[in-house]
Amino acid sequence: MGGLSQTKSAGKRKIVVCRDLGKDAMTMLNSSGHEIVAWERDTPPSREWVLRNVNGASGVCVMMADAVNDELLEAAGPSLKIVSTFSVGYDHFDIAAVKAKGIRVGYTPNVLNDSVADTAVLLVLMAMRRVGEALQVVQEGRWPQTPWSPFLLTGPALTRPSLTIGFLGFGRISHCTLERLLAFTQPRDSPHHPSCVYTSSRIRSNQQEIDNEYTARFGVPTRRVEADVLARESDVLIILCSLNEDTKGMVNETFLEKMKRDAVLINVARGPIVDSVALAAALEKGHLCGAGLDVIDGEPNIPANHPLVLNPRCIVLPHIGSASDMSRGSMADLCVRNVLAGVEGKEMPAELGL
Amino acid sequence: MGGLSQTKSAGKRKIVVCRDLGKDAMTMLNSSGHEIVAWERDTPPSREWVLRNVNGASGVCVMMADAVNDELLEAAGPSLKIVSTFSVGYDHFDIAAVKAKGIRVGYTPNVLNDSVADTAVLLVLMAMRRVGEALQVVQEGRWPQTPWSPFLLTGPALTRPSLTIGFLGFGRISHCTLERLLAFTQPRDSPHHPSCVYTSSRIRSNQQEIDNEYTARFGVPTRRVEADVLARESDVLIILCSLNEDTKGMVNETFLEKMKRDAVLINVARGPIVDSVALAAALEKGHLCGAGLDVIDGEPNIPANHPLVLNPRCIVLPHIGSASDMSRGSMADLCVRNVLAGVEGKEMPAELGL
Repeated sequence: MGGLSQTKSAGKRKIVVCRDLGKDAMTMLNSSGHEIVAWERDTPPSREWVLRNVNGASGVCVMMADAVNDELLEAAGPSLKIVSTFSVGYDHFDIAAVKAKGIRVGYTPNVLNDSVADTAVLLVLMAMRRVGEALQVVQEGRWPQTPWSPFLLTGPALTRPSLTIGFLGFGRISHCTLERLLAFTQPRDSPHHPSCVYTSSRIRSNQQEIDNEYTARFGVPTRRVEADVLARESDVLIILCSLNEDTKGMVNETFLEKMKRDAVLINVARGPIVDSVALAAALEKGHLCGAGLDVIDGEPNIPANHPLVLNPRCIVLPHIGSASDMSRGSMADLCVRNVLAGVEGKEMPAELGL
Repeated sequence: MGGLSQTKSAGKRKIVVCRDLGKDAMTMLNSSGHEIVAWERDTPPSREWVLRNVNGASGVCVMMADAVNDELLEAAGPSLKIVSTFSVGYDHFDIAAVKAKGIRVGYTPNVLNDSVADTAVLLVLMAMRRVGEALQVVQEGRWPQTPWSPFLLTGPALTRPSLTIGFLGFGRISHCTLERLLAFTQPRDSPHHPSCVYTSSRIRSNQQEIDNEYTARFGVPTRRVEADVLARESDVLIILCSLNEDTKGMVNETFLEKMKRDAVLINVARGPIVDSVALAAALEKGHLCGAGLDVIDGEPNIPANHPLVLNPRCIVLPHIGSASDMSRGSMADLCVRNVLAGVEGKEMPAELGL
């Protein structure tokens, strides 16, 4: 009995969890036999709470708001084996620091693809059909003085001939988004069929072959272009790349000036990729039909009088891209299975290749 | 010369136009050789203006807000041949009165199918993903106190297994809407594929054959049901039927009570089909996930404190269903070509079969 207890105890690790992960995921954690130290609330814990509690932990479950850097790694100490993030993005990680210490990283790819693609299309439709202005008419009680008329609140159509759909970053979520949008455009076999352009940070020797494969897969001409071509040609431009030193502030004044006057810009990736001041100025000038942002630089500290919140041509959502019950449930499940596998030295369901 | 002038004059008819139809359509009218009396503004003319000016007219172009009844027909007199409406719906017509006088009716089907279907999907996504609440968080400056958390503002997913999409009325716009929505669901060949139920006012002896054809066409089981089955089975319920005595108030308390608790209700047809008081009560009780209305009973006289405008689970748009530049341009074109063909006794591009 003593020996068995000791064996069990030897396998028992400390896992720190920085947010309530929901009933199913918390039950899985609490019945794992490990020591679970959880901040079981919907608001983030203080940094002080995190740093104090990670000491001696083998695993940590974090959110986007929790910076994973030397400070956290040193507070945890040499016991730390795995950091599991409840996100597909990992811009809150100091990847070099994590790599240097040989710590494994779990993340939640794929399970949120459909939800984020849904949000991207939602924002495309809201921006093109001028929903911000339309909602204001109703909510401010101006509808009685703004009766239906033939050209009231008209916006550009997704069925426009030869629509060009552009993606800044062309991973799995972009593919899901493109497939949805193609159900709204001219048919793929029409003479006025849409086409797709995208940027990719990866330079590959067989680019033509890759584009041929995409073209066959999506049924519309699809090709990799440079960022300035993407800006110039896109009628609908969707940002779906990672945030890193190369993409931070990439959509700036110069980029926006190259865009078509009736194009829409959608950001469902990370806020700092877009220069908010430049976007507000572009919308103010009537350059661009509209914008749809699920993310914005400085979030969540965005006041009601932020110029992009005030502009009815700009839709600002509070980062709900993956907020479907199915996706968030799957993310919680994957986040916990990653941390458990990590502390137990097993293969993780979704480990980031460092 | 005199003879030619007289011939031309004999063919010259009076056409009254109740709203600015845009540059292209107004140019076509003004260069038609007919006498054009137009209320060239974006707001509706007074009823008095219409009744006074239609006297002696051969054709009239009307909008949804202009009632076409005995009053108007008698004010026009026996010269009236055609009333051309800038809409696909014709609930503003007293069809019996028009028919009794042998007056032809032009309308604008098909050219708005894509735009209205886009609006239907837009409202489905907004209602399911709780965009009303999300926008309030940002616009009221509550985002800093409402940081990202795993289950904040989560809504049901279109990828849920065995999703049932329901249509009250299953004409061309419903078909376009279904095709778009199927790009968001589980794949058609998945074991958890979606299915479609619909109601139709037409009872047909070969119903099974028709449903087999729909099933083959859309790639998912599609069947006609009674209204109470539609209410009970639909996860997404979209109203796309005509307004008439049978459909007025059809979505009432009894209907809403049968609906699933996490379903969404979308109205892109006509406001009076839904009982607003019953819908507000259902949403207030938390019965239904949300609603998306492009139309509402009593529009445009909807104050800012209307219970459905105040409820963040209900999206209310000011009847912009067909408001894409392409659709509205095509509607104006069709409206004018209908009235010209009507006054000239020719075949109309889109004549309503009475």
